[in-house]
Amino acid sequence: MKLFLGIDIGASGFKYGIGDTKNGLQCFDTIRLSEKSLQSFRSTFAQIFNRVKKWNVCGIGIGSPGTLSFPDGKIVGLNPNLRFWTNLNPAEIIPEDINLPVFVDNDANLMTLAESGLQDCELCVGITIGSGIGGGIVYQGSVFHGAHGFAAEIGHTIVYPEGELCACGKKGCVEAYSSVDGIRRRLQALNSPYAGMALPNLISLRNRISVVNKVIAQGEEAMIRAMANLCTILDPDILIFGGGAMDLSLYNIPTLEQGIKELLPEANAKHLKCVLARYGNRAGVMGGIQMCERMMTKE
Amino acid sequence: MKLFLGIDIGASGFKYGIGDTKNGLQCFDTIRLSEKSLQSFRSTFAQIFNRVKKWNVCGIGIGSPGTLSFPDGKIVGLNPNLRFWTNLNPAEIIPEDINLPVFVDNDANLMTLAESGLQDCELCVGITIGSGIGGGIVYQGSVFHGAHGFAAEIGHTIVYPEGELCACGKKGCVEAYSSVDGIRRRLQALNSPYAGMALPNLISLRNRISVVNKVIAQGEEAMIRAMANLCTILDPDILIFGGGAMDLSLYNIPTLEQGIKELLPEANAKHLKCVLARYGNRAGVMGGIQMCERMMTKE
Repeated sequence: MKLFLGIDIGASGFKYGIGDTKNGLQCFDTIRLSEKSLQSFRSTFAQIFNRVKKWNVCGIGIGSPGTLSFPDGKIVGLNPNLRFWTNLNPAEIIPEDINLPVFVDNDANLMTLAESGLQDCELCVGITIGSGIGGGIVYQGSVFHGAHGFAAEIGHTIVYPEGELCACGKKGCVEAYSSVDGIRRRLQALNSPYAGMALPNLISLRNRISVVNKVIAQGEEAMIRAMANLCTILDPDILIFGGGAMDLSLYNIPTLEQGIKELLPEANAKHLKCVLARYGNRAGVMGGIQMCERMMTKE
Repeated sequence: MKLFLGIDIGASGFKYGIGDTKNGLQCFDTIRLSEKSLQSFRSTFAQIFNRVKKWNVCGIGIGSPGTLSFPDGKIVGLNPNLRFWTNLNPAEIIPEDINLPVFVDNDANLMTLAESGLQDCELCVGITIGSGIGGGIVYQGSVFHGAHGFAAEIGHTIVYPEGELCACGKKGCVEAYSSVDGIRRRLQALNSPYAGMALPNLISLRNRISVVNKVIAQGEEAMIRAMANLCTILDPDILIFGGGAMDLSLYNIPTLEQGIKELLPEANAKHLKCVLARYGNRAGVMGGIQMCERMMTKE
């Protein structure tokens, strides 16, 4: 049995697992980072490899935050949560004496790849909702990268021209309304005492505190508008909503689906389905394994 | 030499031509429709076939307005300018005794296919600006249809939530601002005497009449916003603007390119190029020929 190592790089820790597409994960764990530095990234990777060396791994698939250019796999632009993590290929943290094929992709792309495998679909779009908004497109079983690797930057489509300022510097991006950080910033601007509350508590206040309800409802509406435009352009058969905030039911799937359909041309609306991601926090690792397996089977 | 017949179905007439990808068009002509009816469509097709029978045609590629479902090729939904032209496959107008392979696609998809062949690109998006707004996506040399054939309905992406009413019934679509009909409707709503003017004259007034300038500038701005969102989602390397209104320079290509880049994530903006379509009114016919040739070479 051929096994693959999947690694999901995050700002607070590395998730990893061993497995294959057919049998799923044989093991899964998270290692928290001691600090945010390239040195800590390297030693965390070494630690993972030490833990999994008893398995006969034949390839490594890495999911990374940030915008990756294709085909060279380099991270371009700024990673606001990981400022040192740019202008390099994530595979560079792997020690030179590890002679295994390595494949890298954006973490939201890999989440979408893994989740799409659980659905019957031709064209699938994945949306991760957490501190920011990530996106991935999987077409006929493969990640769609666009011309340079920058496709599916869904969080920075503009839903309200000249609207709220986004962390990216533009105004009116869906991320400024629908991400957890966006919701917090909007509550802060309203001097709401709830802005800094833990997310589960904040969500539970939605039914009782009108300002919380209003800001979350506006986040839901912005997400509906962003997704309606995306579906008008792409005509996917399924939208998969994941990420930490969706695990906590920040937005309601039937509300999203109905809202999106109301804004779509009739033909596009007819077949669309919205679902919740099913792999939870393991999606990135599973996607890394699947990417690696596919690339090595192709060769 | 293998030759193919391309037909571009329009509400006022059928354009047709004979040729192949390598050598281009050997002949090209337009037949105006005597009336808008299925019967007239059938007789126009028969007329074309009579004219071209001296050529040794080995396949037919048809471009049609409207939303075509894939893979069955049926037109779905309403065709506002051709109300009888729905719920059928365009190939049905071909007499039964013509035993040639027939392939159909949306006219804007075929325009994009033809124009993309003139560019060095991985992912190309074509936009036709006329009475409405059409769109097509060509990825690695093939039309990208989405999951059901409805991709690239660019005209109905919403740029201004709760904005101007569009002919489709929704509010704020780019078509309501940037299409020629949209511009006329907006001038009408302002009681402008220029609303009904022929398009070349209307465009020439832009520098002298402030209301005309304002409405056209708003159309350009809406187009910029729609394309910025599209590029954020798709990451194309080139946007090709065509259609009758662009042949008359309704919008300025450098203005569009600069405006779109200002609204894009840095990585996406870096490589983007906007160009004017080069086949003019022959793009649909040329795209039909190329589609047919490719499909028959694949088989």
